[in-house]
Amino acid sequence: MSASELSYTFLGPEGTFTEAALLQVPGAVEATRVPCSSVNTALERVRQGKADAAMVPIENSVEGGVTATLDAIATGPELRIVREALVPITFVLVARPGVRLEDIRRISTHGHAWAQCRLWIEENIPHAEYVPGSSTAAAAVGLLDEDPHYDAAICAPLVAAERPGLNILAENIGDNPGAVTRFVLVSRPGPLTPRTGADKTTVVVPLPEDRPGALMEILDQFASRGVNLSRIESRPTGQYLGHYFFSIDADGHAEDSRVADALAGLHRISPATRFLGSYARADQEKTPVVPHTSDAAFAAAHAWVNGILAGAPGVLAGPQGTPVI
Amino acid sequence: MSASELSYTFLGPEGTFTEAALLQVPGAVEATRVPCSSVNTALERVRQGKADAAMVPIENSVEGGVTATLDAIATGPELRIVREALVPITFVLVARPGVRLEDIRRISTHGHAWAQCRLWIEENIPHAEYVPGSSTAAAAVGLLDEDPHYDAAICAPLVAAERPGLNILAENIGDNPGAVTRFVLVSRPGPLTPRTGADKTTVVVPLPEDRPGALMEILDQFASRGVNLSRIESRPTGQYLGHYFFSIDADGHAEDSRVADALAGLHRISPATRFLGSYARADQEKTPVVPHTSDAAFAAAHAWVNGILAGAPGVLAGPQGTPVI
Amino acid sequence: MSASELSYTFLGPEGTFTEAALLQVPGAVEATRVPCSSVNTALERVRQGKADAAMVPIENSVEGGVTATLDAIATGPELRIVREALVPITFVLVARPGVRLEDIRRISTHGHAWAQCRLWIEENIPHAEYVPGSSTAAAAVGLLDEDPHYDAAICAPLVAAERPGLNILAENIGDNPGAVTRFVLVSRPGPLTPRTGADKTTVVVPLPEDRPGALMEILDQFASRGVNLSRIESRPTGQYLGHYFFSIDADGHAEDSRVADALAGLHRISPATRFLGSYARADQEKTPVVPHTSDAAFAAAHAWVNGILAGAPGVLAGPQGTPVI
Amino acid sequence: MSASELSYTFLGPEGTFTEAALLQVPGAVEATRVPCSSVNTALERVRQGKADAAMVPIENSVEGGVTATLDAIATGPELRIVREALVPITFVLVARPGVRLEDIRRISTHGHAWAQCRLWIEENIPHAEYVPGSSTAAAAVGLLDEDPHYDAAICAPLVAAERPGLNILAENIGDNPGAVTRFVLVSRPGPLTPRTGADKTTVVVPLPEDRPGALMEILDQFASRGVNLSRIESRPTGQYLGHYFFSIDADGHAEDSRVADALAGLHRISPATRFLGSYARADQEKTPVVPHTSDAAFAAAHAWVNGILAGAPGVLAGPQGTPVI
Repeated sequence: MSASELSYTFLGPEGTFTEAALLQVPGAVEATRVPCSSVNTALERVRQGKADAAMVPIENSVEGGVTATLDAIATGPELRIVREALVPITFVLVARPGVRLEDIRRISTHGHAWAQCRLWIEENIPHAEYVPGSSTAAAAVGLLDEDPHYDAAICAPLVAAERPGLNILAENIGDNPGAVTRFVLVSRPGPLTPRTGADKTTVVVPLPEDRPGALMEILDQFASRGVNLSRIESRPTGQYLGHYFFSIDADGHAEDSRVADALAGLHRISPATRFLGSYARADQEKTPVVPHTSDAAFAAAHAWVNGILAGAPGVLAGPQGTPVI
Repeated sequence: MSASELSYTFLGPEGTFTEAALLQVPGAVEATRVPCSSVNTALERVRQGKADAAMVPIENSVEGGVTATLDAIATGPELRIVREALVPITFVLVARPGVRLEDIRRISTHGHAWAQCRLWIEENIPHAEYVPGSSTAAAAVGLLDEDPHYDAAICAPLVAAERPGLNILAENIGDNPGAVTRFVLVSRPGPLTPRTGADKTTVVVPLPEDRPGALMEILDQFASRGVNLSRIESRPTGQYLGHYFFSIDADGHAEDSRVADALAGLHRISPATRFLGSYARADQEKTPVVPHTSDAAFAAAHAWVNGILAGAPGVLAGPQGTPVI
Repeated sequence: MSASELSYTFLGPEGTFTEAALLQVPGAVEATRVPCSSVNTALERVRQGKADAAMVPIENSVEGGVTATLDAIATGPELRIVREALVPITFVLVARPGVRLEDIRRISTHGHAWAQCRLWIEENIPHAEYVPGSSTAAAAVGLLDEDPHYDAAICAPLVAAERPGLNILAENIGDNPGAVTRFVLVSRPGPLTPRTGADKTTVVVPLPEDRPGALMEILDQFASRGVNLSRIESRPTGQYLGHYFFSIDADGHAEDSRVADALAGLHRISPATRFLGSYARADQEKTPVVPHTSDAAFAAAHAWVNGILAGAPGVLAGPQGTPVI
Repeated sequence: MSASELSYTFLGPEGTFTEAALLQVPGAVEATRVPCSSVNTALERVRQGKADAAMVPIENSVEGGVTATLDAIATGPELRIVREALVPITFVLVARPGVRLEDIRRISTHGHAWAQCRLWIEENIPHAEYVPGSSTAAAAVGLLDEDPHYDAAICAPLVAAERPGLNILAENIGDNPGAVTRFVLVSRPGPLTPRTGADKTTVVVPLPEDRPGALMEILDQFASRGVNLSRIESRPTGQYLGHYFFSIDADGHAEDSRVADALAGLHRISPATRFLGSYARADQEKTPVVPHTSDAAFAAAHAWVNGILAGAPGVLAGPQGTPVI
């Protein structure tokens, strides 16, 4: 199957940061790209086989975990993360031609974008009222409607660039210049992506019981094997207050013995643990491994234990090979 | 100061679940209650001394932590949680008189409410389009505008009951019948609230470094002293991906020796740890305490160590009380 | 090979508690039993194939670990413990006929026996002088020499019963009436003894480095898998002060998945870890196992991880079975 | 009191390594030095006030802990270690004038010395028989008796040098050229010895219960506060098999906050924990301290917690200073 025959969904509409993330995937430019109105819809099409993979946001350096994504991949038919993408987040303020900064009374955008531009707005348009939008792109495009009930929108530069009817009033209005959003490409279960030495593994671990130390036992499965965690999020299971699952990114690949061993430990403690994939890190930073958690150390340990279990003919063994004493 | 002279802010508008939580506070009915457009505004008025306390949502059994609240109390001038309140979350679908279920094309509500009624909507009004609202109450009230651009709203029963112009089309449309939201009453720092034996303590702990086991060290401060955690949330500090703080609710009161000792441990590991208050649990469930973490055990241990440090005149002591050898 | 063709060594001479332990082994009465002058000699004959197994003391409830045995099985060619035996320790005071209690000036016995009867001696023969003996039996037998340089001996009842020339002056003179010594039957490496559900596993683990927590990491290999320890001894390696190995008895059998997994963990942390056998407990007390450390839990965990590693053909796979992205 | 008025006991007789250790103490040359026949006797005289301090061996780099000392200081009236001393262990073989190596049939010495010269004996006098002696010095001195029942003795060079009637047949016959024994000077409880920054603290901790992880909890009191252990010995309490106490040397002084805090933790877990003193290390090696376990970190943490507990007048406080809500 060539890249151009592949079909991707993404959290739309077109022009959002999510599409920018998707366009980082080799071959995505030629492939079919289907914008979806929600993370759930984008993933559902993959589950149903109508698309090959979905690009969805999972974590923002300012706003935190994207709960819709965390929850959607933690439940329902299993999915696999096969790739991650990082996109710097920068915002522009757009309006219809002729509208000036001082004319603006109402601004629409997605809630997360609004939160990330709050300081700039307070300084520059302090009396602006917020109008919730379903996405940054939808808010921008809505300005082109016949009678929009707001005067300006906050959106990604990509959207503004593609719409001739929109005027950029201000650039880089995000409060945090280093803001970045992490996206994941999600597919159906299949062969593991190749191990690169600079990998991440994502798991979902329901907290087994409400007792002192349950979470520590989970974390110890990683720590005791020298596996570092780069992300940990608690999410409610929705059943009752205080009932959580944890969404965790660990450094390493399921084919790394230390990670495989940690996964086995997690499964014992919390049998409903869900594996969400091993995939190359976007930053390609190699994972350091201490000697006693290397593949070689695990192989040597298992060989040693297997030798013990196999035994060897001993002088005390009776006819059936069992010791007489 | 009598209860009626107190002034409270809350995440408005009136009629939301947050006001229902505030009305649980003894005396709040007679007190001044000021609805605010955001959690930040509600807290800011308390910080500035314009209000005595603010009622804000902190955790929802379905949607998880309320990030706006978690972030707002974790930064800026210090605040203290002095009380918690639990409110069952039930939703109603309202429309203007004469509108029938089959007439509905567009529905407005807050994003969290929409998420919690998704299944009901898919089954009963599958083609409904979602119009984001800034709150459930605002969406409902907006229906009374001259020309609303949506046909129905999802809101709390309280709102519908108070507005004669709204017609309830369906009740209990939430997907999770046991949904509950936890609210906290936040004040300025002051004397600790009295210890009841059924208390919670809330802290914010920045993760000191990105190394294997850093989070475990933090959790061990609680676990090694037999202190159970009822909530743990990771939040980005906003500085860069992978840089977190943890918002934690622990069972017990700062006046419990085991909690005070854990707090001291947290401060050593992460000196920017923030104490956000000890307060009575809404469910009044007593915290079990094992003998070796009781106040008596801590008192005995400190008395013993102090005895060692004080020493006693020994035969080897020279004139100045120091041993000659 | 029938039981009577087997040959055992034991820490002699005849009549000691060690021979009493050996006689507990089924068939040992008819087998060849060779007393040896030291633990080392008894084990050396087994290593050389001159005997099938050696019975040696390993732990005394009053005096602690038998260091000669702990050190001898921790070094040199590998050996395996195949059985344990418990023998209650009771002492008698013997002398030549005609000697009365008030005549006794000098008493000989093994140092451990002397230590265990100290209080009785202080009360009954306060001015008695101690003459070191190489064993309790040797001290008793020495009284029958022509001109013994001591007047009485402390020994096991068995010795006194077998020697007509010895007169028992006092019985049960041990200070601790519940004293018991644990013995182990040691053979060459061979098939594991059958798993009974009430087993022990003995290992020797050199402490890898002198750093905070190294010992904890070792113990955590057991604790994190719910494996209880019934004995732990630190022993110097003899290289320099502060350089230790640990001799450990753990509940369970190497064929128990949780024990096998702990062994693998030990080997990784301390590759020179030595396995000294799994064998039935003398007290036949079954080992309780919590569900998440059962064989079934380990099997399920490994099956789950193996399924992840095996993968399954996915839609994104290219012609060679590797994902195209 | 001048040094010459002090009185010391030591494990005798004169000429042993223990007296060599005692002579390292400033002023001990002029002080009264009383040899005792056992560790117990030496300590008993201190407890009774008949001597100011006792020098006794505690640990040998080859043979391990000196159990008589470990047990004697762990029980009975409390004592304090006020100093440690290290003595290199070298052995000589002595005989009466005229006796040649090839004439030797029987050799006497203390059991530990015999164990440490075994290889040399096997190579040089393979058929020598061992005659137990109560000490190395006693064995040597015994050769000067009228009719000794052995031909040679193994002892410290000091003994041989002091006895003109003894002939040195071989020097440095110990199997381990780096062998060293550690001694401790033990006094009655009194003021702590001054903190030097290069200190040790000795404690005795009974294992509270036979459950998985009890020992780990004890060790965690040190590890979680960055306190390294330089010695750990398990000893039976003598009550029943599997019932232990641990004798532990930790780096640091009870006046170091991290050590004091660890002591308090030990007391909570095992209230019968016994403090045996803080004293300067013989090797004067400074203890490294990580910032979050420094005295300053503990002081800051306690000040912070005390501030929380003290509170400050808050707006919600009622007349009696308790919050009205």
